[in-house]
Amino acid sequence: MAKVKKQPRPKAETPKGFRDYFGADVTARSEMLQNIAQVYHRYGFDALETSAVETVEALGKFLPDVDRPNEGVFAWQEDEGDWLALRYDLTAPLARVYAQFRNDLPLPYRRYAMGPVWRNEKPGPGRFRQFYQCDADTVGAASVAADAEICAMLSDTLEVAGIPRGDYIVRVNNRKVLNGVMQVAGVLDPSDPEKFAAERGIVLRAIDKLDRLGLDGVRALLGAGRKDASGDFTDGAGLGPEQAEIVMAFMTAKAPTAEATLATLGGLVQGAPVGIEGVQELETMAELLAAQGYAADRIDIDPSVVRGLGYYTGPVFEAELTFEILDEKGRKRQFGSVAGGGRYDDLVKRFTGQSVPATGVSIGVDRLLAALREKGRMGAQAQGPVVVTVMDRDRMADYQTIVAELRAAGIRAEVYLGNPKNFGNQLKYADRRNAPIAVIEGGEEKERGVIQVKDLILGAEMAKEASLEEWKARPSQFEIPRSDLVAKIRDILVSQRG
Amino acid sequence: MAKVKKQPRPKAETPKGFRDYFGADVTARSEMLQNIAQVYHRYGFDALETSAVETVEALGKFLPDVDRPNEGVFAWQEDEGDWLALRYDLTAPLARVYAQFRNDLPLPYRRYAMGPVWRNEKPGPGRFRQFYQCDADTVGAASVAADAEICAMLSDTLEVAGIPRGDYIVRVNNRKVLNGVMQVAGVLDPSDPEKFAAERGIVLRAIDKLDRLGLDGVRALLGAGRKDASGDFTDGAGLGPEQAEIVMAFMTAKAPTAEATLATLGGLVQGAPVGIEGVQELETMAELLAAQGYAADRIDIDPSVVRGLGYYTGPVFEAELTFEILDEKGRKRQFGSVAGGGRYDDLVKRFTGQSVPATGVSIGVDRLLAALREKGRMGAQAQGPVVVTVMDRDRMADYQTIVAELRAAGIRAEVYLGNPKNFGNQLKYADRRNAPIAVIEGGEEKERGVIQVKDLILGAEMAKEASLEEWKARPSQFEIPRSDLVAKIRDILVSQRG
Repeated sequence: MAKVKKQPRPKAETPKGFRDYFGADVTARSEMLQNIAQVYHRYGFDALETSAVETVEALGKFLPDVDRPNEGVFAWQEDEGDWLALRYDLTAPLARVYAQFRNDLPLPYRRYAMGPVWRNEKPGPGRFRQFYQCDADTVGAASVAADAEICAMLSDTLEVAGIPRGDYIVRVNNRKVLNGVMQVAGVLDPSDPEKFAAERGIVLRAIDKLDRLGLDGVRALLGAGRKDASGDFTDGAGLGPEQAEIVMAFMTAKAPTAEATLATLGGLVQGAPVGIEGVQELETMAELLAAQGYAADRIDIDPSVVRGLGYYTGPVFEAELTFEILDEKGRKRQFGSVAGGGRYDDLVKRFTGQSVPATGVSIGVDRLLAALREKGRMGAQAQGPVVVTVMDRDRMADYQTIVAELRAAGIRAEVYLGNPKNFGNQLKYADRRNAPIAVIEGGEEKERGVIQVKDLILGAEMAKEASLEEWKARPSQFEIPRSDLVAKIRDILVSQRG
Repeated sequence: MAKVKKQPRPKAETPKGFRDYFGADVTARSEMLQNIAQVYHRYGFDALETSAVETVEALGKFLPDVDRPNEGVFAWQEDEGDWLALRYDLTAPLARVYAQFRNDLPLPYRRYAMGPVWRNEKPGPGRFRQFYQCDADTVGAASVAADAEICAMLSDTLEVAGIPRGDYIVRVNNRKVLNGVMQVAGVLDPSDPEKFAAERGIVLRAIDKLDRLGLDGVRALLGAGRKDASGDFTDGAGLGPEQAEIVMAFMTAKAPTAEATLATLGGLVQGAPVGIEGVQELETMAELLAAQGYAADRIDIDPSVVRGLGYYTGPVFEAELTFEILDEKGRKRQFGSVAGGGRYDDLVKRFTGQSVPATGVSIGVDRLLAALREKGRMGAQAQGPVVVTVMDRDRMADYQTIVAELRAAGIRAEVYLGNPKNFGNQLKYADRRNAPIAVIEGGEEKERGVIQVKDLILGAEMAKEASLEEWKARPSQFEIPRSDLVAKIRDILVSQRG
């Protein structure tokens, strides 16, 4: 027989830009998603889980994030010729599902969805090509009551996820107010919607860069243009100083109270019906939210919210975490945005030709988890199982009986299943597993009807700081009757948590 | 400006072979996975979530299912040239992760994983290209105590998932016993493992077809070969009648007790060390399981388990649901397999060159859910929210306050967000939402400090069968003080459940 040609071994590597999640990272996210789902459910939203794969045709070619226009999808061609791709968000599949099943779905249709999405972009530090999204959307409700509801739900969700009141703020803005401002500033002509499209594009991109460029940078882009540090020149929208100031006044209209903010905005859009409508929408939302007890400490009208204004068509909202963290250079900065959304009324139209009103929010689950980790609000490590050691290889049935009793009592427990020859290895294993307790039953103990119990948490503490007297007074290893196994182990676990 | 060319509208269609899950189907699966995860966790298994995407190189080209050798993966080439693919199961990623992180992982490493996998196969009725798997594996434990543990855990898992004892059986077999049988039957020569490889392949394929061909069909394939109904002839393994009978005796060795079964198997493999080792492994597993209280009504030694024998290297297990259902032609049949697994010792070797023992199980979550549905053990429809109707468009804040109170009390509730003009549409909506209660507050009620409550469940019952007297005695719509809202709604919800 011919020798089999030796194949080179495959590399054991996570593909570039992807990552694996272990243990507590998986369960913490799963618990957070469950908690969020409960809030969504209570608000009357129904779960929807679409497949990860869509036809490229249904997905469309354009991604919603204004700041990442070039990013792509993972796509491949079927044998029969259709192109398929992994979903890049949860909104495009919702649009497809709503168009496909609209005769069977309630109207309005409130749905939530959670799961991974994929972006075919260049991987970078902290930038992954697969990540979780967690969305809630209402399709078919034109009233801003739907937007207010989403904001209230977002506030509840953040608190349920572990962000206390005061550590976050949901900020609300409205694209129609900006349209009114643009009309007053002379770059939007209601009688000829296509006119000044280029200028408006520059205005939108300029205000979207507020975070990065600051007010002066935006002002330059609204006017003649701006030269950046490298000397590159970016053309501006060509607004005169007065026109530009109207846009600037919009972005900085935030006042101490919603009433004052709305009054300022109302003043800015005088004579522009679309802007007046936008201010009224914000007023209605503020009223509805106040009626439900959501004050400005939770949800606030804030025209400095500029992200997504280019994409959304009415109310826009963003949830920011307001506590400070240290960035990679040790400087204090606010944690920033963890969720965003707004009204988008044209998504279903691609499929059906009919405009369907829709509004929704997307929570960045992984960022929210990172925030909780920063605040130390997440158990850094999950507790490991009670480890039952194997003293006598032939008595595996005895050890299995011990774990079975513990598990039946709801206690996480396992038998050491490696080679039991070296007992030190078994304790090292228990250590690596974060085991709170090790159980030891040698032949001699078996005969006397007892077992040895090792409190590994106490043991670790004692090893750090205890005096000899303390060692004697609080032994971390002791003998208990075999018949007391479950009760004693439970006692120790409770004392460890105290 | 040039007219924009009209693009044809995209089709709103789930891609072929994929499907969408709505509402209760999503939450039922999610709850089942949570319950299963709790059992896995209690057994000391840690969660692992790998990315959906792997390099084709790491994935390998071969799928584990013997009965679907031609099925492929969804793959695409990166710009830089690497080929990536969607995972087709959860075992291949485990092998990659274990090889990659083996220095940081505990040894043995118990892990569980749950999530979708993708198969690029021809879609057919009931055959989807994305489905859920839910796996638990122990890597690095050579002892069959690890296999016994998996079987015990599988039994616990099925019960937690809602399959009562008596409605399922975990069957255990062992590939080594079959190897012993093949040695005795003359198609395995321990001194020349390559010899008779073709014959053994035919034997494996033959017994794998037991379900479909029956004993006589398998016997024919073990011998000279078999002509099927279409006249096609399949070559047999060429065993003589006596040799074939040894293999047949193996498959039918199941006796009323495990002891009797093991005695029969022991007799069959006399003189074949590998077979004797296999029988001993089954004996050890039976002892360990008995010590933990798992009797033959839950886990049984059964050599008729032939699925996966070609893939696994030691113990093989399969969980079957034993209750009968009606198939599509109205005939009674057992529901069948919902989980399978076994020992596979060579998976990591591809990467590292070192053989690492491993054993595990994979639960077919969607099949398990289908089984619960068949048995009527799953709420056919989740209860909808309390629907607060909108009588007066200008008093949206009042209605929002009502839902906010209900939600704060943990009651699922929503305001009708569609166009409120037609009240009939609002009640139709409540019906489509499976709403248990509709709340109505007109201006006149508002003034009097009352609200109308409509018990939609009672209403539907009464509409079906009630007499006029009953209608009067148990009105399904009545007035309550606004201040009693939460208490009364809760009472009605409780009475509906009773």
